[in-house]
Amino acid sequence: MNERLNTLLQSMNSHGWDHALITDPKHVYYLTGFASDPHERFLGLLLSSGSEPVLIVPALDAAAAEAASSVKNIVTHQDTDNPYAVLQRSLRGSAGTVAVEKEQLTVSRFEQLQQHVDASAFKDAGPVLRELRVRKSPEEVSLIKHAVKLVEDVLRQGLKKASIGVSELELVAELEYLMKKLGADAPSFATMVLSGPNTALPHGVPGGRRIEAGDLLMFDLGVYAGGYASDITRTFAVGDLKPDAVRIYDTVLAANQAAIQAVKPGVTYGSIDRAARAVIEHAGYGPAFVHRLGHGLGMDVHEYPSVHGLNEDVLQAGAVFTIEPGVYVQDVGGVRIEDDVLVTETGIEVLTSFPKELTVIG
Amino acid sequence: MNERLNTLLQSMNSHGWDHALITDPKHVYYLTGFASDPHERFLGLLLSSGSEPVLIVPALDAAAAEAASSVKNIVTHQDTDNPYAVLQRSLRGSAGTVAVEKEQLTVSRFEQLQQHVDASAFKDAGPVLRELRVRKSPEEVSLIKHAVKLVEDVLRQGLKKASIGVSELELVAELEYLMKKLGADAPSFATMVLSGPNTALPHGVPGGRRIEAGDLLMFDLGVYAGGYASDITRTFAVGDLKPDAVRIYDTVLAANQAAIQAVKPGVTYGSIDRAARAVIEHAGYGPAFVHRLGHGLGMDVHEYPSVHGLNEDVLQAGAVFTIEPGVYVQDVGGVRIEDDVLVTETGIEVLTSFPKELTVIG
Repeated sequence: MNERLNTLLQSMNSHGWDHALITDPKHVYYLTGFASDPHERFLGLLLSSGSEPVLIVPALDAAAAEAASSVKNIVTHQDTDNPYAVLQRSLRGSAGTVAVEKEQLTVSRFEQLQQHVDASAFKDAGPVLRELRVRKSPEEVSLIKHAVKLVEDVLRQGLKKASIGVSELELVAELEYLMKKLGADAPSFATMVLSGPNTALPHGVPGGRRIEAGDLLMFDLGVYAGGYASDITRTFAVGDLKPDAVRIYDTVLAANQAAIQAVKPGVTYGSIDRAARAVIEHAGYGPAFVHRLGHGLGMDVHEYPSVHGLNEDVLQAGAVFTIEPGVYVQDVGGVRIEDDVLVTETGIEVLTSFPKELTVIG
Repeated sequence: MNERLNTLLQSMNSHGWDHALITDPKHVYYLTGFASDPHERFLGLLLSSGSEPVLIVPALDAAAAEAASSVKNIVTHQDTDNPYAVLQRSLRGSAGTVAVEKEQLTVSRFEQLQQHVDASAFKDAGPVLRELRVRKSPEEVSLIKHAVKLVEDVLRQGLKKASIGVSELELVAELEYLMKKLGADAPSFATMVLSGPNTALPHGVPGGRRIEAGDLLMFDLGVYAGGYASDITRTFAVGDLKPDAVRIYDTVLAANQAAIQAVKPGVTYGSIDRAARAVIEHAGYGPAFVHRLGHGLGMDVHEYPSVHGLNEDVLQAGAVFTIEPGVYVQDVGGVRIEDDVLVTETGIEVLTSFPKELTVIG
């Protein structure tokens, strides 16, 4: 049995759980090596103290699961089966304490589970998996670095197409084409290219607007490769910017650097957010930094930890997260600069290396 | 107030619900016109009998929500706020009966909701929304037809790049580039191109395999455009196929046609599945048709109804779903042929028009 499964089983024992039912497809992959998107079908890895793990998969994924999964005890269900009844048979009788993934399981699935599984209590397996995932192994860090390298190559090549008259959506198409061409599995989220006034919307949606001289031009993109995500934001100048826009850029860059300097094991995530926020507040843009500083990065592009001012969890070596301060001002525009960083035993390794000084394109 | 909100409020009254909390971003869009991807942040539309609807959005989406939402009463929360406490303030005191989206809400969010909202009961709003969504309006049908036209144009143009020596992933990159270029918002799911032996995996993942003479070549792709999805599968021959592969093709095509002929209002979804399955069983491939016949299609690429043999729900005019029989045989290959269809007052309109007779390419 692999090390991750072993750690999870030990954790189950120390919590006094009789079973854990893992239903997040990413966690099934993490624990068994079997990657799949079951859509609305049921996928579950059942771990039980004192017996072999069981992988419950839709029948149409059986061959793929047999090929990839390190858990070899595979039970299938057809679209016409009730998968919870299939699960019930694997559990045989009273289930005792069952840990489930409360952040992933829907209420309606949980209600079906409760109908079919005679458990004395349902606990949340989430914190245990989170703890397992937050410390990235060297192999995982390598995979993240590979995803970062890919997305930076995509940005470098895609940027060559950015010139006056090209639309946001044309650039998105170009970037996502490059992702596939350079070997990424998929974008890690909907690629964002915003220009001019649209940059003032922190969650704006790319559209048909064409780049004009004087624009701020913001790229926020990432890829999945080998099961791991990258995520980077850079903002560029198209020709000359107004002084207000330059001042915003300088402020955001200083905030990004202040946060990077604050990272080391033992400090809190909140303190990293506050380090960046203090710079922005000092420049008078406090209310325009409307989001948290960043988020964990790994198998999910957004995962634990959430890097915000009230998160008093402590940074651990092996944690990977984003640092992405932003300032958004209507009628001027927005700037965000995002890096991916790894907490090391002694401090920080910044995984993204794309230049951050204000660059004029077009 | 728009018609959809009105219908939902009437339904709330007839069920005796005091409030409905809509948390699926697609449903927020459907009911308010505000489209967003809140990631892990809280987004909710609170409907209450006797008072105005309230839209609760992350602060960074406030400007976008104000611009797009027909519900003008907008409450925001920062990343450092507890959004359930914000919701609680909007509810003011005892909440009575609250309907939530049990198929969308996670157990952990539901537990937080239960801590903050003093409800006498939590009901499932899902069936009411499903009933609202299943009958597509003429405007919605137009949007689906547009998404179908786009994906068929993508397939037609992409197919020109399919020749011996080209890899599955190269074709995926080409198709997804064409999607963006022709104006789609995004693929409606991870585009699938499988070749040769890989076609025998119904949920196979495209890889570096290069097309060879004698291959079956399967394309399963769709787009989102204007908020609605399309989904099509076609399987082609690269040069001459073995007789076994041709026989599978003919069987799947006959099953697809049998299902199409069975569609009209008043029959059950189960009967449509069985019509296709009977053809495949008769040809001796019954066990190789390992999935349901199809799925509903609309704002989600997979939505209600699930078209399988045990679904005794009755077809209604306005319903849109896929018909996608498939046969997968190891060492021979797999064939799937998928159309999108609309149930009309008198029968069926097949929305996909890409040719289905066995076509040799490369």
